[in-house]
Amino acid sequence: MPELPTTLRGAATSRRILDVAGDEFAERGIAGARIDRIVAAARTNKAQLYGYFGSKDGLFDAVVADYSERLRSAGAFDGDDLAEWAVRLYDEYLRHPELIRLTAWIRLERQPAGLAFDRSHLDTKLAAITAAQAAGTMRQGDPLDLLTMLAGMAGAWSPVSTTYTATPDETEAEHERRRTLLRESVRRAIAP
Amino acid sequence: MPELPTTLRGAATSRRILDVAGDEFAERGIAGARIDRIVAAARTNKAQLYGYFGSKDGLFDAVVADYSERLRSAGAFDGDDLAEWAVRLYDEYLRHPELIRLTAWIRLERQPAGLAFDRSHLDTKLAAITAAQAAGTMRQGDPLDLLTMLAGMAGAWSPVSTTYTATPDETEAEHERRRTLLRESVRRAIAP
Repeated sequence: MPELPTTLRGAATSRRILDVAGDEFAERGIAGARIDRIVAAARTNKAQLYGYFGSKDGLFDAVVADYSERLRSAGAFDGDDLAEWAVRLYDEYLRHPELIRLTAWIRLERQPAGLAFDRSHLDTKLAAITAAQAAGTMRQGDPLDLLTMLAGMAGAWSPVSTTYTATPDETEAEHERRRTLLRESVRRAIAP
Repeated sequence: MPELPTTLRGAATSRRILDVAGDEFAERGIAGARIDRIVAAARTNKAQLYGYFGSKDGLFDAVVADYSERLRSAGAFDGDDLAEWAVRLYDEYLRHPELIRLTAWIRLERQPAGLAFDRSHLDTKLAAITAAQAAGTMRQGDPLDLLTMLAGMAGAWSPVSTTYTATPDETEAEHERRRTLLRESVRRAIAP
């Protein structure tokens, strides 16, 4: 069984491993990540890493748990203005490609069907959609269906897009053109 | 340099390698694929495989080229009814998860920015959008932006969804509910 670090120095090492492993997994996925590279960049050794995290899969789980709060809160969800939420996600993906890349690796390497994460990650969002529907500001329909489609729209240009991935080195005019299309399309799609 | 097979038997072996490698890469990606497994399942040996394809990356390129026509034609594109095209893609992803999984691996492991494929793959689709805009049946806007957003909507429940992946073992009622939402949402989004 992995053991939690019991010293300040151990905690700092464990934190460095998580940070370095987050970058490595986001870039290369589970199969592609190399423990040798993580150990070297985190200035530790394999025995220490396996002592804390057990295995490569255990380390990936710890990285996902570590990112979990960031994933959950990425682009604050506002049931009264889902068009702006989608636009915030567009920008979030530009700034932090590692968040959605980690999710895509989970999908491809771990979870081929159903939800990518435990449903509890979506509770707040689904409740906000239900409330907007009850208030008559949003079309009816299964809240998870609506959330899934809106996430598809918001992620259309994301670092895991199967068509086109937007990047920060493009012009502001290009980003603004896409934001406008996204905002208007979400508004139309979810109108009552 | 890799050499093309010069005998019928060689051509059959090369074909078997491509078929097996397509499945292996779709399931595990480039880093995760194992040449040992491909060689065993294709009833050949490493020398033969490397003789034909040069390297693991060379084999991946050959698999992508082999799938290219299928990727290009997946869900026949109809500029006059993009809502039905999106619904056809929803079904295509249910039946053939390997096509979009291969694209996602390309995105994650090869092409972190811009187009996932050469623009020539999109020429027909972009021309159809431009024609629909000229005919006044579709909203104005950059055709590649529109295509990217529509692909995001069509792929919202796909095997590479970061929210929810639909599967054939779900009820027809569930699929029909999503198809209806997708169809209506695309119609609304692209209306003139």
